[in-house]
Amino acid sequence: MTAYTPPLRDMEFVLTHLAGLDEVAALPGYEEASPELVHSVLEEAGRIAAEVLAPINQQGDRQGAKLVDGVVRVPEGWDKAYGTLMDGAWVGLPFAAEWGGLGLPGLVNAAVSEMWQAANMAFTLCPMLTQGAVNAILECGSAEQKATYLPKLVTGEWAGTMNITESGAGSDLGAIRTKAVKAGDHYLISGQKIFITYGDHEMTENVIHLALARTPDAPPGVKGISLFIVPKFLVEEDGSVGMRNDVACVSLEHKLGIHGSPTAVMSFGDHGGAVGYLVGEENRGLEYMFVMMNHARLNVGLQGLGIAERAYQQARDYARERIQGKPVGAAAVTPIIDHPDVRRMLMTIKSHVEAMRALAYVAAAALDKAHAEPDAALREGAKRHAEFLNPIVKGWCTETGVEMASLGVQIHGGMGYVEETGAAQHLRDARITSIYEGTTAIQANDLVNRKILRDQGTTAYAVLADVSTLAAELSAAKDHALAAIGQSLAEGACYAKEAVYWLLHNNTDPRLPAAAGVPLLKLLGIVLGGYQMARAAAIARSQLDESQGDAGFLEAKLNTAWFYAEHVLPQVPGLLTSITRGARTVMSVPADQL
Amino acid sequence: MTAYTPPLRDMEFVLTHLAGLDEVAALPGYEEASPELVHSVLEEAGRIAAEVLAPINQQGDRQGAKLVDGVVRVPEGWDKAYGTLMDGAWVGLPFAAEWGGLGLPGLVNAAVSEMWQAANMAFTLCPMLTQGAVNAILECGSAEQKATYLPKLVTGEWAGTMNITESGAGSDLGAIRTKAVKAGDHYLISGQKIFITYGDHEMTENVIHLALARTPDAPPGVKGISLFIVPKFLVEEDGSVGMRNDVACVSLEHKLGIHGSPTAVMSFGDHGGAVGYLVGEENRGLEYMFVMMNHARLNVGLQGLGIAERAYQQARDYARERIQGKPVGAAAVTPIIDHPDVRRMLMTIKSHVEAMRALAYVAAAALDKAHAEPDAALREGAKRHAEFLNPIVKGWCTETGVEMASLGVQIHGGMGYVEETGAAQHLRDARITSIYEGTTAIQANDLVNRKILRDQGTTAYAVLADVSTLAAELSAAKDHALAAIGQSLAEGACYAKEAVYWLLHNNTDPRLPAAAGVPLLKLLGIVLGGYQMARAAAIARSQLDESQGDAGFLEAKLNTAWFYAEHVLPQVPGLLTSITRGARTVMSVPADQL
Repeated sequence: MTAYTPPLRDMEFVLTHLAGLDEVAALPGYEEASPELVHSVLEEAGRIAAEVLAPINQQGDRQGAKLVDGVVRVPEGWDKAYGTLMDGAWVGLPFAAEWGGLGLPGLVNAAVSEMWQAANMAFTLCPMLTQGAVNAILECGSAEQKATYLPKLVTGEWAGTMNITESGAGSDLGAIRTKAVKAGDHYLISGQKIFITYGDHEMTENVIHLALARTPDAPPGVKGISLFIVPKFLVEEDGSVGMRNDVACVSLEHKLGIHGSPTAVMSFGDHGGAVGYLVGEENRGLEYMFVMMNHARLNVGLQGLGIAERAYQQARDYARERIQGKPVGAAAVTPIIDHPDVRRMLMTIKSHVEAMRALAYVAAAALDKAHAEPDAALREGAKRHAEFLNPIVKGWCTETGVEMASLGVQIHGGMGYVEETGAAQHLRDARITSIYEGTTAIQANDLVNRKILRDQGTTAYAVLADVSTLAAELSAAKDHALAAIGQSLAEGACYAKEAVYWLLHNNTDPRLPAAAGVPLLKLLGIVLGGYQMARAAAIARSQLDESQGDAGFLEAKLNTAWFYAEHVLPQVPGLLTSITRGARTVMSVPADQL
Repeated sequence: MTAYTPPLRDMEFVLTHLAGLDEVAALPGYEEASPELVHSVLEEAGRIAAEVLAPINQQGDRQGAKLVDGVVRVPEGWDKAYGTLMDGAWVGLPFAAEWGGLGLPGLVNAAVSEMWQAANMAFTLCPMLTQGAVNAILECGSAEQKATYLPKLVTGEWAGTMNITESGAGSDLGAIRTKAVKAGDHYLISGQKIFITYGDHEMTENVIHLALARTPDAPPGVKGISLFIVPKFLVEEDGSVGMRNDVACVSLEHKLGIHGSPTAVMSFGDHGGAVGYLVGEENRGLEYMFVMMNHARLNVGLQGLGIAERAYQQARDYARERIQGKPVGAAAVTPIIDHPDVRRMLMTIKSHVEAMRALAYVAAAALDKAHAEPDAALREGAKRHAEFLNPIVKGWCTETGVEMASLGVQIHGGMGYVEETGAAQHLRDARITSIYEGTTAIQANDLVNRKILRDQGTTAYAVLADVSTLAAELSAAKDHALAAIGQSLAEGACYAKEAVYWLLHNNTDPRLPAAAGVPLLKLLGIVLGGYQMARAAAIARSQLDESQGDAGFLEAKLNTAWFYAEHVLPQVPGLLTSITRGARTVMSVPADQL
């Protein structure tokens, strides 16, 4: 079993100085979010992460979820941990008091989510999916649907799921074949869904499935998909749980990781049709999906961040204990944390974690503003910013999470390859994050087409202009670290603008932007992460100059940003070449010669 | 179960045109290696890979090796496959006829090894370790030891192991504590070794352990380590298998991958001491280890290559079948292999595989020349070249193998995360390769200290001069692809020389070269891999111009090199910055702030 220590100091630094918690707390509806309350919420969430969720993570991996006589059994301790979440009303943290929620900003929920994902990703998928279902019903459901489902979902008494994927319909939702036939006030749903996270379990008295299906006369493709609520148990008039619906888990996948999370094949309508209730209007299912997608993708990005932090802590703690020779340049035999290459790997993870955290929290704050900002123009600006950052956070934080978890294994040497150590689990768990909720290629398509080409690069250029402005300012700083960071960031911003420019002016062959999408997403992730590190460094420098705060932490922050500037940002020119020169070569070998 | 198709066409291209099989075959002792014989050896080895080893790979992963009542049980089918190797005298392929071998060059053995590692890495570790033991006894054993052990090891009747690591002695061999006390004509060995690959099993009638241990009066550290032969069963005068020795497997590790390969904790001397026979002289064990290390590390590099090829084939075959929407720019609904980002990922793996194969085979050929070249000056030059390439092949091919196996998972989308698909196994298996036989940091230390600083960069500069010469030549080519490749390679070579220069002139703080080692190793891997791709491209262009060979294959080779030049080589400037500017920032955050 490996410990998890909530990184509260860095989280609060980011919330306060980079993500603008005070601005978010000033938005209508978030008045509760005083710094004191947020501090105690994070402390308590951190305690749950460290004391309740982390201790059952490895055992959950070993035991795995099991389907026994038609019943999904979660690992030992999962039920009790779920009870802790219910007791604290944690599922409802970001929802309005009207539905039983705590009314805190999504930004605070993001910080809580990071810790829980870090502590136990396989477990935390369950409340995460329930929050997604709440968002869907909140945004698109009828008043009656809200009244029926939200109070129980928000308290966590019932869990929610997303039933999207089918064996022939993964990235291509247009291929969905599950049928929905109108039958009075409801529909009868039939078909099979795969890869349904927490598709069934008995931690809650009901499971509310949100399922995409197609009505008989729906147009083909994505324009003919509708969204339905399909409860595991039908809900009686009085709100109590009634008859079993015609939906069942028929098998669980045997996966590389997140073993504790049941990934179900769900069968709808084996006995005549599952009762489903249309959400919103027919054929608008995909549109409703997009409404929820920003939250869902942010959450998966937070998984990438969380697992990287966890891998970091585990590797660091091992490196502090393990003795293996006298580190070069050291005066005595000291632990391997003093070996320069071990330090390089730890700094690589640390600097990425801090950059990802800042970028993800900034994206969460933008989503809050997009939701609650009363001024329409500001709200619209925040929405564009949030939507621009969304695929970058999802794509970059998950790809990076996998790499960092792999580095975490490497730091352990041979012990990292032994499952008992726990480092390998983080790599196995992390590996799903760049696949589900839209692969990195899907994020890149979203970024390229909807977030850059659609507005002719306006948002991208505006975001990068801020980066350049800060970079120029820091480049002129007297402080050696700040100047180096500024210089490196200036180059990064310049290359990023060049990449956007190329994208806007090289779309005669539509395959080129698609070929360049993932390198572009990574490039922007690195530059925008670098921007946040530079902001952090400037704040750290100024606090140090004014003798505020914890000098050790602030100096480390400054030097970590410097490390990022000289080890991570320099990857940008290579990515630019992959985009501008390399896109053409992607399709140059015919498929039959591959 | 996933198929494996031996990539014979590319292998033979590399053997013939890049690794210089004809030159190697002209060396004394390798007269048997006619192109025809090599061709049939590779065909037959490929058939065994595809028909015998690949089909039991996934089942071996599922069943794993087990310790049952003190006996190590390998997975089903392992015994029979081992019998096939014995029947074909395959273990003896690179050894002299004097010992029952086939007397073929290590270069041919490398090509065979690539295929077997690709087909079933967990299985192939067993004959690979036996070859390592043969090398050790051949190079350092007495005439009597050779006569006693080699004939049985070379035929594969007995297996060999390397007992090096202890719980306190991994990367730091100086910490080895296993004891060896002289007792007449032998020593009594006692202590515990961990991570012993194929430490025990019943596929062979005997297991010959090579173990590092320390005599009572040995000097401390690495200068006090001796090498011993410790047979599982003592060998009688007549060569038959006699009494059980006091060495036993006490447990097997539960690992991330290579489940079929028993990774043993071995206990020596629980009942008074295991009989061991000194190899060579006391206290020279580490020196003997280094003698074998070139072969061992090349073999692990070949694992990285093999597993990347396997991951590539699996992902490509899936991408050829899977339909998911109409690929952008495509006229009709076609398989996902036509999606630009899928193609980008496949080309990334393909181009790395071809570069790794060429570099590893060139390194194998250099080892053959270092061994068999009759001219002393040429032999010495080949030795320096081989030793320079060795840590690069081991470090770069294994790090790259892990990344490529992870990309292979990504190409599968959600199916990649499901264990039944088989893609995830390649990632799990690959993950050990950058750890065992010396972590990437250990390879980087070797590269920096023994292969660059020790000769003041002479070898490195000489190798890079050849790269620059070719790059300049290609830059002036009329062919657009060749010119682009030449230009990109010229930049890479320039940056590589700059990195070597920095290393030679920035060692006032001994931590700097250590901090820069891994980025430097990767940089050199990319540039030297790019050099081989450029050589291949030039040959392909010239064969195309002369209408020789398979035009489809040659055009693909040229375009794959071009892809590499615009997607892989451009990573070099970023790595240079990590080295020259970044090394200082590695140690900038004190350990207690990590």
